[in-house]
Amino acid sequence: MMLTLAIDMDETMADTTRQINKWYEREFGHTLTEEQLHGKEFRQAVPPGHSGVVHKYLNTPGFFRDIEVYPDAIEVVRELNKKYQIFVVSAATEFPNSLKDKIEWLDELFPYLNWKQYCLCGDKSLVQTDLMIDDRSRNFIHLKGSKTYLYSAHHNVAETAYERVNDWKEVAQKLL
Amino acid sequence: MMLTLAIDMDETMADTTRQINKWYEREFGHTLTEEQLHGKEFRQAVPPGHSGVVHKYLNTPGFFRDIEVYPDAIEVVRELNKKYQIFVVSAATEFPNSLKDKIEWLDELFPYLNWKQYCLCGDKSLVQTDLMIDDRSRNFIHLKGSKTYLYSAHHNVAETAYERVNDWKEVAQKLL
Repeated sequence: MMLTLAIDMDETMADTTRQINKWYEREFGHTLTEEQLHGKEFRQAVPPGHSGVVHKYLNTPGFFRDIEVYPDAIEVVRELNKKYQIFVVSAATEFPNSLKDKIEWLDELFPYLNWKQYCLCGDKSLVQTDLMIDDRSRNFIHLKGSKTYLYSAHHNVAETAYERVNDWKEVAQKLL
Repeated sequence: MMLTLAIDMDETMADTTRQINKWYEREFGHTLTEEQLHGKEFRQAVPPGHSGVVHKYLNTPGFFRDIEVYPDAIEVVRELNKKYQIFVVSAATEFPNSLKDKIEWLDELFPYLNWKQYCLCGDKSLVQTDLMIDDRSRNFIHLKGSKTYLYSAHHNVAETAYERVNDWKEVAQKLL
């Protein structure tokens, strides 16, 4: 019996911050820098009047369809899929227009996965797997004895309580 | 701390067989009778040449948007929601066109629930809750010590291994 492994999508498989930045540039003519984003959520790094734009982008059809995938994710997840029972678990139901885009993105970029491995939820506390990779440590709290890996992101740089992976090469080193 | 309760959508909250039958009638001019459906999946009850129509309906935009809700479900789930931490868990990712419709249907008919309580997945084996109501006993197999209730449906009439609920009034009697 394989161990089960939950993998988050946004900021773990997909470079969602980069996509927000692209859409932000399209609307406001400039991107935020790495320095401006350091230690923050995107919505905290923009001027006060712009804090609602992220929510707007996330529920716009098409936003999630062509997000850039993180380097090496496709290859590493392919190998992980041979060793673990993988579930891609995304907190997505807040954004109904994201759901079909997310499935199509996975189908296109991770064709060796299938719909049985997808889980689009609101609150990951009902999910129990043996391992979890996620950029949000709040998704680890309910897990019972699971091994967790915090995928590094601007917003979580200050967190120290969880084992960290900085990129998919590191995931491969730890899990393959 | 409330006990967690997973509730299935199709054939538990929603009368999906009735909706398939409506769409079938629209295409072929007649419905299937209760007798024809007894003990069977809809796709098993139709003539061999029609066995693919159900899959087609389930992935047609709009199919899940106006399904009839089972009697008393809205009122009983409202009360359950005060006593349990409810998650609506639907195996839906096989049908990407169903996802937004399912969220909108829940938002409309169960406005006291919210997106954090929705889970659209492919395989419910990653979900662990204290209780589960579902018309598919295969979704109970992985549960660890949970209390399960098989919601009666044409396709499960012959099953005897699980405690059964025949309607939402019975759910209320057992769980409220």
